[in-house]
Amino acid sequence: MDSKVKESDRIIIGIDPGTNIMGYGILGVKVKKPFLIALGVIDLHKFGDHYIRLGRIYDRVSMLVEQYCPDEMAIEAPFFGKNVQSMLKLGRAQGVAMAAALSKQVPITEYEPRKIKQAITGSGAASKEQVKEMLRRILDIPAESLETKLDATDALGAALCHFYESSKPIARKGASSWKDFIAQNPDRIKS
Amino acid sequence: MDSKVKESDRIIIGIDPGTNIMGYGILGVKVKKPFLIALGVIDLHKFGDHYIRLGRIYDRVSMLVEQYCPDEMAIEAPFFGKNVQSMLKLGRAQGVAMAAALSKQVPITEYEPRKIKQAITGSGAASKEQVKEMLRRILDIPAESLETKLDATDALGAALCHFYESSKPIARKGASSWKDFIAQNPDRIKS
Repeated sequence: MDSKVKESDRIIIGIDPGTNIMGYGILGVKVKKPFLIALGVIDLHKFGDHYIRLGRIYDRVSMLVEQYCPDEMAIEAPFFGKNVQSMLKLGRAQGVAMAAALSKQVPITEYEPRKIKQAITGSGAASKEQVKEMLRRILDIPAESLETKLDATDALGAALCHFYESSKPIARKGASSWKDFIAQNPDRIKS
Repeated sequence: MDSKVKESDRIIIGIDPGTNIMGYGILGVKVKKPFLIALGVIDLHKFGDHYIRLGRIYDRVSMLVEQYCPDEMAIEAPFFGKNVQSMLKLGRAQGVAMAAALSKQVPITEYEPRKIKQAITGSGAASKEQVKEMLRRILDIPAESLETKLDATDALGAALCHFYESSKPIARKGASSWKDFIAQNPDRIKS
């Protein structure tokens, strides 16, 4: 097993599923600090058959789950699409990737692209390049390690977004405004 | 292993995937004659969580594939849906069921509901009850064995439709009209 995997307190696999290219990013966490373990893409263009593509996604995600033993999976999942046909295809690609996690009891959380961009760059409207650049800085990755397709950094972004979201203090989760916070914490109001 | 499974020359598993109820039907073929091996539904209503439902579909379809060793899988797959949200969910349910087949190298063929109804009853606009009644007659099933949800008979219909489609003579496949047939078989024209 990868020494970085052994050193990790927690491992998150990020997936950006698609029927043409599927991106993945493996994020390790050591003493609450996230770091890159691996990232890459599964290029499905060479497989003409729809089922061979789905089978390939299942096999590769299963291999990643076996190799890196992630504690959680984070998936980039758009809630809106162009049309019902593309959404059905996307749903199938997501489904086979999810099956690979579910068969190993790895819990899944999904994030909308805007949510991931917001968490990584501070703007939900950021470009994929901006997400990549911020990931490089936050995780201190050498530029040459990121010379890969943007689907890979998108997937890594999903994993880091999940790390941030799951690291939020519990108290903040219920309080969406000052009004809520004051209502939930009356003892913290100075009289 | 089920004695009916042992006796079969060929086994087809039919699946009608859904996020609320998933139907399945196992069809055996002996000396070109199809017969019922098993059918049933996986009721997912009791599982509130979307991922638990998907995991359940994957586990149960995997179990069916292991138990009955099907040679092929036939899936009822609508190509059109109400909206992108329901199509994404349907795609995921199809995806996890497909992953269970693909992980065991079971080839998949999908059929539109209209195509299945046409193959079983002769009418693409037939009701689910008509499909069930025709299956009962064609496969000579005792009425009490069909006291199950219509999703199960729909799935069995997909399996029988696949049997009919894959049993068609090769010559008919390429010829969609008399014009095509004549063009492909010039030696069969009487002079």
